[in-house]
Amino acid sequence: MSRTPTHAPLEALCGGTWVTVPELLAARAAATPDAPYLRKGDERWSFAEAEATARRFAGFLKARGYAGRRVASLLPKSPYIVLAWFGTNMAGAPFVALNHAQRGALLADLMLRSRAPVLVTDRASFALLAPDAQGAAALVVFVDGVPPGRPSGQDWVDWGAVEASPPADPVAQAVSDPTVMIYTSGTTGRAKLVILPHAMYTRGAAMLADAFGYRPDDVFHDWMPLSHVGGQLHVTLAALVAGSHLVMFETFSRHSFWQEVADCRATVAFGFANVVYLLSLAPPSPADRRHTLRIAMIANNTPEAKAAFEARFGIQLLDTYGMSECEPLTLPVAGEQDPPGSCGRINGDFEVAILHPATDQPLPVGEVGRVAVRPRVPHVVMKGYDEDPEATVAAWQNLWFHTQDLGRFDADGYLYFVDRIKNAIRRGGENIAAVDVEKVMKAHPGVVDCGVCGLDDPVVGQEVKAVIVLAAGATTTPAELRAYAQANMAGYMVPRFIELRERLDYTELGKLRRESLAGRAGELWDSRSERSEAAPKQGD
Amino acid sequence: MSRTPTHAPLEALCGGTWVTVPELLAARAAATPDAPYLRKGDERWSFAEAEATARRFAGFLKARGYAGRRVASLLPKSPYIVLAWFGTNMAGAPFVALNHAQRGALLADLMLRSRAPVLVTDRASFALLAPDAQGAAALVVFVDGVPPGRPSGQDWVDWGAVEASPPADPVAQAVSDPTVMIYTSGTTGRAKLVILPHAMYTRGAAMLADAFGYRPDDVFHDWMPLSHVGGQLHVTLAALVAGSHLVMFETFSRHSFWQEVADCRATVAFGFANVVYLLSLAPPSPADRRHTLRIAMIANNTPEAKAAFEARFGIQLLDTYGMSECEPLTLPVAGEQDPPGSCGRINGDFEVAILHPATDQPLPVGEVGRVAVRPRVPHVVMKGYDEDPEATVAAWQNLWFHTQDLGRFDADGYLYFVDRIKNAIRRGGENIAAVDVEKVMKAHPGVVDCGVCGLDDPVVGQEVKAVIVLAAGATTTPAELRAYAQANMAGYMVPRFIELRERLDYTELGKLRRESLAGRAGELWDSRSERSEAAPKQGD
Repeated sequence: MSRTPTHAPLEALCGGTWVTVPELLAARAAATPDAPYLRKGDERWSFAEAEATARRFAGFLKARGYAGRRVASLLPKSPYIVLAWFGTNMAGAPFVALNHAQRGALLADLMLRSRAPVLVTDRASFALLAPDAQGAAALVVFVDGVPPGRPSGQDWVDWGAVEASPPADPVAQAVSDPTVMIYTSGTTGRAKLVILPHAMYTRGAAMLADAFGYRPDDVFHDWMPLSHVGGQLHVTLAALVAGSHLVMFETFSRHSFWQEVADCRATVAFGFANVVYLLSLAPPSPADRRHTLRIAMIANNTPEAKAAFEARFGIQLLDTYGMSECEPLTLPVAGEQDPPGSCGRINGDFEVAILHPATDQPLPVGEVGRVAVRPRVPHVVMKGYDEDPEATVAAWQNLWFHTQDLGRFDADGYLYFVDRIKNAIRRGGENIAAVDVEKVMKAHPGVVDCGVCGLDDPVVGQEVKAVIVLAAGATTTPAELRAYAQANMAGYMVPRFIELRERLDYTELGKLRRESLAGRAGELWDSRSERSEAAPKQGD
Repeated sequence: MSRTPTHAPLEALCGGTWVTVPELLAARAAATPDAPYLRKGDERWSFAEAEATARRFAGFLKARGYAGRRVASLLPKSPYIVLAWFGTNMAGAPFVALNHAQRGALLADLMLRSRAPVLVTDRASFALLAPDAQGAAALVVFVDGVPPGRPSGQDWVDWGAVEASPPADPVAQAVSDPTVMIYTSGTTGRAKLVILPHAMYTRGAAMLADAFGYRPDDVFHDWMPLSHVGGQLHVTLAALVAGSHLVMFETFSRHSFWQEVADCRATVAFGFANVVYLLSLAPPSPADRRHTLRIAMIANNTPEAKAAFEARFGIQLLDTYGMSECEPLTLPVAGEQDPPGSCGRINGDFEVAILHPATDQPLPVGEVGRVAVRPRVPHVVMKGYDEDPEATVAAWQNLWFHTQDLGRFDADGYLYFVDRIKNAIRRGGENIAAVDVEKVMKAHPGVVDCGVCGLDDPVVGQEVKAVIVLAAGATTTPAELRAYAQANMAGYMVPRFIELRERLDYTELGKLRRESLAGRAGELWDSRSERSEAAPKQGD
């Protein structure tokens, strides 16, 4: 029987489990004031220093007349995002960390829709903003010094102005008040701005710290973007509850990763499935197990990739299931082995059901359907989508939060993520999970990557298309791949179309950009015509 | 142990419990085609005739190009409302019955916000609409003949056009599709338009038929407004499930009630607490038990009034708890006696919790808090407030539907309604339920009615005011009433202000208009100054 994670770390630190982020920070700063919390390069903050700086940021906002007003950040991975977040909460408002990987009109839209009158940024990041988005905030704080060219009507100050401000006491907030607002990935449609309450973050962080056994002597190798729930909750707040040390890096590099781990003596690492893939590219070496890591939170691995990585590197891979709107929904326990392919069992703060995607009726154990969530306690799911109550009402029909994921339970209560609903392909009355086809195709020795999508078809509804990346030097033909598929999957799943590409397109979080699969960028083969067409040249 | 009501009547009639209103009507019309269903005065419809007429209404809408478009009605209690409702559903759209008791700008607002291009009305009702509301529908159906004066650009037809239309087959609808939209009472703020799915009505009606033992030989004395969930679900649909006969009256009259019951041999009656009060005004007579009624659904009785009425008239009074957004939440069982003051136990389709009104935390059994609801099955609560997603999101925080009521459970799972939250008075840190004070004051022999409210006070937050209607000939003084209150309730509950009025103001559903209590219409007495002030004259 698996151990059931609890909120014990929060109870022990704060004397209760209903606390705001500033209350958690104050309790941690009182408990281990001098222990290291935030580090990037040569810049370091202990817990007490982080709390004092956050108070100065609150005092700065108050003095400038922005107490209680939203604050946004646009920065690469940086402790300043964390300090500004905590200080904004202390001044009574939620914080919005914009996605630094975003660009152009989409980035400008994130800034404008945040409706934040204060922006914390650096000179290079600020330059990424379109002029209207640059002008959206009344007050801009540059963490690397004020550049020339301030327009009239906008206030530009250096972070030194924050450091010089008198610290403010945190204003009273309820655990139901928002601590942050985060944009969903928006891979389909416009990104939605999710409003998240304090209790979701403090209670969720406690559950993570308990499940993964985070300790004050843990060091997190941390490149997780702070515009996502992972970077905010799994890393920053879990470390705050546990008293662990965050060492920040702006990105993941397979070339420098092991040296970075060695330099900071990291015990915990984070990432996505492509991290496992990239680290596995290096030829096996006796050095593979000479490191300080004990666990890594790596999302979306196949059971095979997970087992191979764990066996080779001696690092347990763990992954919770969740999303911006409610996280973490499952809690695998460090040191225990969940059934292969499962995401763990359900966090006791939540009730999870599998509902029929069309009728919303609950499905029996074992059947695949839509994952739906209800909180068992208040204030641990989103308060809604900002400025989009229609989308909130749609997601909350029948008083369930409807995820966009397909999943199933086993008889022991383990949850299995199956696929995004939008990735499901419906062909002639059969439902096909793209990931099921991808799994089989990736197991072919000549294939290194595969993405599968549906193409609309007037006869069967959708036809299956597989985009294949061949291994270096592999000469496997589409006809051979199709024959392989016919031998290894149900007939209705076999791709009719096969396109060969040099590489697939991934987001900065390592998620496959599925919207890129339907179009054509390489040689396309149709099993009906049994001939290939060359990709159109760029510009065609 | 109380019997647990089930959906058995729906299962027996339809072979399943997930049916739309038109599917239920078709099953009933097939089962007992010639049994009487709707009657008002000399007009009568069997189940088969009702179904055929509804099909003609659907055919009429289709022929005129309004299939799938909303239809509104503005009529006094009438079978035509029911026929138009069912026909509108058959044509694939929800129906909106406007409150015929409403007037002026508020009535016009209901019509305009319904956004219904078709209105079913009669000449007198249509004349109640302001010109802009009269012009809002493109097509107006008069059930009593087209009046002169049709404006250009608007189509006016007689109900005969419906009868002359070819019947249409019902379009396919899901049980999640809306069957009706009903306006909340709007006693605070603007009335909200609640969107209700088929399954809520068909499953709810089955539960009511089972709990109350409705049979094909039951005759309902029915004056319940069809603009409310009571008239639609408790009466019209419960009779449809059970095969009972609805005999309609435009209003309740204590002078004609017993004659009406005798004329139609009614076995079931409906109403609100003031019905019990009004019928009890008649001097006791040997005729009190010479009637055909076996049960009556009468909402909001005190346990004392209920017991006295049942003992005198030999009619069991039953009352479910619920509201437009989710109904019926509780199911007392005919023939069984629930604990005095309770509303019964919870309908198995729902989960009901008592939450702290401020923190949303669940409260232990026995404690008073906000009644909150989750459906255990899909499509049995509202889909949302039409054109008001903000209000829907506010009501659905933490994935509970937050009622505006205070209640508590006992250890046996019986729910007790305590008060509307907005009626709770907060005086010097104490919460006072207005109904608790009213109950004590009404027990005074010189008092026939009492309404209590809070008046804002800078020192204690709110002061308690009681509006008292004295019994005919009673000479009780405010000082005497206060002394009585001091002897019979906690000190903080004792009204500081006492106003004597001739009568209290009730809605057409018999609900006290509490917003009328704060102002002054009679002699006002303040225990501080110990003097009375005469009411301002009208026009002051």
